[in-house]
Amino acid sequence: MKPKPTGPIPSGYSAIDGELAIGGRAASELVDLAGRTPCFVYSREYLDQRVSMLRSAMPERLGINYAVKANPFALVIEHMAGLVDGFDIASAGELEMVKAAGIDPARVSFAGPGKRDEELEASISAGVTLNCESEGEARRAMAIGERLGKAPCIAIRVNPDFELKGSGMKMGGGAKPFGVDAERVPALAREVISAGAEWRGLHIFTGSQALSAEAIIEAQGNVLECANRLSDEIGAPLPKLNMGGGFGIPYFSGDAPLDISVIGGALGERFDALPDSLSETDLCIELGRYLVGEAGVYLTRIIDRKGSHGVIYLITDGGLHHQLAASGNFGTVVRRNYPVAIATRFGASPEEEASVVGCLCTPLDRLADNAYLPRAQVGDLVAVFCAGAYGASASPANFLGHGPAAEILV
Amino acid sequence: MKPKPTGPIPSGYSAIDGELAIGGRAASELVDLAGRTPCFVYSREYLDQRVSMLRSAMPERLGINYAVKANPFALVIEHMAGLVDGFDIASAGELEMVKAAGIDPARVSFAGPGKRDEELEASISAGVTLNCESEGEARRAMAIGERLGKAPCIAIRVNPDFELKGSGMKMGGGAKPFGVDAERVPALAREVISAGAEWRGLHIFTGSQALSAEAIIEAQGNVLECANRLSDEIGAPLPKLNMGGGFGIPYFSGDAPLDISVIGGALGERFDALPDSLSETDLCIELGRYLVGEAGVYLTRIIDRKGSHGVIYLITDGGLHHQLAASGNFGTVVRRNYPVAIATRFGASPEEEASVVGCLCTPLDRLADNAYLPRAQVGDLVAVFCAGAYGASASPANFLGHGPAAEILV
Repeated sequence: MKPKPTGPIPSGYSAIDGELAIGGRAASELVDLAGRTPCFVYSREYLDQRVSMLRSAMPERLGINYAVKANPFALVIEHMAGLVDGFDIASAGELEMVKAAGIDPARVSFAGPGKRDEELEASISAGVTLNCESEGEARRAMAIGERLGKAPCIAIRVNPDFELKGSGMKMGGGAKPFGVDAERVPALAREVISAGAEWRGLHIFTGSQALSAEAIIEAQGNVLECANRLSDEIGAPLPKLNMGGGFGIPYFSGDAPLDISVIGGALGERFDALPDSLSETDLCIELGRYLVGEAGVYLTRIIDRKGSHGVIYLITDGGLHHQLAASGNFGTVVRRNYPVAIATRFGASPEEEASVVGCLCTPLDRLADNAYLPRAQVGDLVAVFCAGAYGASASPANFLGHGPAAEILV
Repeated sequence: MKPKPTGPIPSGYSAIDGELAIGGRAASELVDLAGRTPCFVYSREYLDQRVSMLRSAMPERLGINYAVKANPFALVIEHMAGLVDGFDIASAGELEMVKAAGIDPARVSFAGPGKRDEELEASISAGVTLNCESEGEARRAMAIGERLGKAPCIAIRVNPDFELKGSGMKMGGGAKPFGVDAERVPALAREVISAGAEWRGLHIFTGSQALSAEAIIEAQGNVLECANRLSDEIGAPLPKLNMGGGFGIPYFSGDAPLDISVIGGALGERFDALPDSLSETDLCIELGRYLVGEAGVYLTRIIDRKGSHGVIYLITDGGLHHQLAASGNFGTVVRRNYPVAIATRFGASPEEEASVVGCLCTPLDRLADNAYLPRAQVGDLVAVFCAGAYGASASPANFLGHGPAAEILV
């Protein structure tokens, strides 16, 4: 059997005394700090650098929002509060989280196709912008605002007629449960404005996890054109335009990091030539995974090393209950290896093919299939990279009763 | 677009006043009882009938174990305690659950490839049987027993040379992280016995979720033959043999229920002609999904009904955060519809094609794709069947901050 490639380790991770280091601390020290394995370690420095790199690549005018769903760990949200301009939430639960982090609800917008009345009410009371996903939802929001005696802040989420090409998840182009089909947006916007809502403009999300700068540039061009056209048809300026996200990170062998300087350059040129309808608009993008994904590492300890019919299995105390996507069971058709390393032998030469599995009693629980790794023993730590987004919170932590992993920000 | 078929609704569910009824109560009453939507409703009566049907089909001698991982809801475990002979757990967390339900640890066995030292210690102290998955694990268990001054109860999990054909998950035949390759079992068993452990025999699990009685009959025959051969090589009788599970339930269109009478008949004939090595052996099977899967229904409320480019979307307050497998994101390559119905129009004629989606802001969150359903409105309840196993606990409940569903046993 040929070894299967593992994904590329994000740049910026190095070794201290032969161990993977994060924030200047070696893996085994980080585990002591977390108190146990498995644990997620998120790096402040990595977050800072990522946002600052993004700011210098993007036009100054562009606001950067953080999509809380990517990583709702309280200390991460709190840290992001000092770095980004706005926050996108997806539930009343996430509203509580941003409030707990001391974030001004005026910086917060709420998207999601199934907002309950209680969620609308909590958002309106707090002054959060609702990215309304349907006529029905907008009308429910206005009725609730009426009842509360408070004008709701309403933006309309558009289901655009185009998609973000090559994106991991397409959120536009054809029938979608998200947003209002573009041709119906002007009528709804006029209805919302004339009903006395605080008009907040449009939200156009075309897809996520794209690694092609050209595709993102094209989608952003389409978003601006669509917003301009809709704004004209609405007959009122757009106070705000959330241009969506889509910036991907490399997970798999062959993936290359996104060239954001090209995207920023193209966006800058477009911003210099904006139509009148958008000249005063507050423009932002909304990123989750791109901001936090590579800033997190999942550390899990090898508790058994065994052979079966010639295959070496490194059995860890972690697994898909914390790393569903890395196990290949979330939104992927063909399982491929994430970037994985032996954290306590970081930088050592690979010597053997081994499969890293979790502790769950199911064949689905694989962290690396037949990877070429340094020879690891019981007690060694395994690092799964790109664990900062859609890891801890997007995995079935209660499955088989092992409970959640520890999380720390260093 | 042609509607996509939904899976077959398990037998035994009927309507009261046009609503799906469970345990004699209509869906909307059940939601009141649960206190909110979404909720999982498990039926005592269904559990009782399932076990009693199984008992009458299987040889009297066969013990029936419940695999707690399938549904660890406290009241379900407690109810099962009065129905089955033994319990299989997969973690120290599940050990706490069975203890909390008042179950005698002597009835409990623990399988799982990555047992930590603390888990081994807790199990040995309690007197739980450890289904050891490797030489290393067995030796750790013996060393811990030594330290505690208590002989561990040890069975060996075998990685058999054959598989359960057509099973949803294969747990045998070739290299596997589970168990000890069959040819190495005798040496390990002798080591364990001579070290003074309480010898508990073998655990041979060949696969899960099979719908072919023939395949299960064949696998059970292979299990008995393998156990007989290994017992001879070990040179000691097998006090116990856990023959595994594998009994599937129908999820998808075209699936037919397993014919357990045929399986029971074939097993009875084999039990009448057991070799000497197995004549005194305590024989059992281990079932999770088969016992509880069809006894559970997930109820979620429609909070929006919208059209997009000709497709009708029924947007619910539930989703993949409670029903990962039903959304097609857990262990399946091609997404197919689970059995789904409009619970508040149960038995009404289908009138339209609609897609039922969850409230999460991701295209992965689908509960039914283009299904042919009665015309449903905001406020109606949707039922997803086969929700009694691998639902609540095998889904990422914290994803997007909506939190877990309510669970009730009626």
